[in-house]
Amino acid sequence: MSQAISPPPHRAVIEHLVRQSVYAKLGKPLPHTAGAPNPLVVNVSARHCHLTQEAVEILFGKGHQLQVHKWLYQEGQFAAKESVTLVGPRSRVISNLRILGPCRTLNQVELAYTDGIALGYDLPLRSSGDIKGTIGGMLMGPAGFFEMEQGIIRALRHVHMSPTDAEYYGVKPGDWMKLKIGGPCGLTLDRMLCRVDKSFKLEVHIDTDEGNACNLHPDTSCELFK
Amino acid sequence: MSQAISPPPHRAVIEHLVRQSVYAKLGKPLPHTAGAPNPLVVNVSARHCHLTQEAVEILFGKGHQLQVHKWLYQEGQFAAKESVTLVGPRSRVISNLRILGPCRTLNQVELAYTDGIALGYDLPLRSSGDIKGTIGGMLMGPAGFFEMEQGIIRALRHVHMSPTDAEYYGVKPGDWMKLKIGGPCGLTLDRMLCRVDKSFKLEVHIDTDEGNACNLHPDTSCELFK
Repeated sequence: MSQAISPPPHRAVIEHLVRQSVYAKLGKPLPHTAGAPNPLVVNVSARHCHLTQEAVEILFGKGHQLQVHKWLYQEGQFAAKESVTLVGPRSRVISNLRILGPCRTLNQVELAYTDGIALGYDLPLRSSGDIKGTIGGMLMGPAGFFEMEQGIIRALRHVHMSPTDAEYYGVKPGDWMKLKIGGPCGLTLDRMLCRVDKSFKLEVHIDTDEGNACNLHPDTSCELFK
Repeated sequence: MSQAISPPPHRAVIEHLVRQSVYAKLGKPLPHTAGAPNPLVVNVSARHCHLTQEAVEILFGKGHQLQVHKWLYQEGQFAAKESVTLVGPRSRVISNLRILGPCRTLNQVELAYTDGIALGYDLPLRSSGDIKGTIGGMLMGPAGFFEMEQGIIRALRHVHMSPTDAEYYGVKPGDWMKLKIGGPCGLTLDRMLCRVDKSFKLEVHIDTDEGNACNLHPDTSCELFK
């Protein structure tokens, strides 16, 4: 049986630790960014879905449990070994749509606009979980089909943070922040939703359109501000 | 024989004219943006290629001339009826890669990073025409194959402008400008290359990754500044 992958720490996490330790050794005050309580991790979410246990069993068979392929940065969240095929309105498909675990209480597919155009969807832009009245589609797994009546969205870009981070950045849940991404095709995302919970690690989630627009790599500079 | 399409004027062009006429009727001074010498048109360039006449003849047959499918905003430029298939390094293909005319003195394919990832290319980011040392690929047409030794790039986002526009915005050729794009997933492109020529109409070209990152539509507000 193959083992789940624990990815190495994100470069931003290591840089943050090194910076703090270097300034401490030099006996110098920390510059603003190095003084943040937590490193800023920016990750690109490729298209994926969240499913209920019921949907997983319809797609993969009675009693099936999602298996961990790779642990994600948020505690307890994982990319599953299982993936499904999404059939769009013009019978075009996206295969290998990754499932993220653990199971949730609703079914939701998160696509980039580029994916939506390829499939023939006019995707609604929604905050994760806010799927009322959104479009639906058909998922296909090895054990069967599962029809989603709604839940296909482009997820609003957002930042996960703890109350400590929110205090440091001077924001509250539901506020909008900006993220400036550097490099030769840099850009600033002007509307980034703040999601605050004490279980959250500081992490920005953008989609592949956003990540590719600025060619985001692990060593690209990122600055989060109000 | 089917005729070439002359697309209706871009919404930004009409809005600019209406704004100027309304302010003139009201006898009020023009606000800054309405006072610009020319409307700001922002267009998304989907993946495409520019070819030499020699390449066109290898791909489509001796003596073949590109036919106009649709006139573009820049004077004399057009999307051709002809398209080619691009074969990438892992034998993955992009079919229906549109040719833009008229023919040029070099062969160049412009892709978004999302296209590059799908094909297996690590695309260099280059200004159009600056293709020395870039990667190559194989083009396939109805009459034959044409191997490009180089010329496959992601084009640097840029703005075409006349010297009158450059004076208004206070920039010179090769300067960098910013473009703020509004809406619910708005962003600001922080590095946009200025290309100035007296034949140019004021127009920003971004690619599909950039256009989809912010869901750019004809009625999305755009602001160009230094």
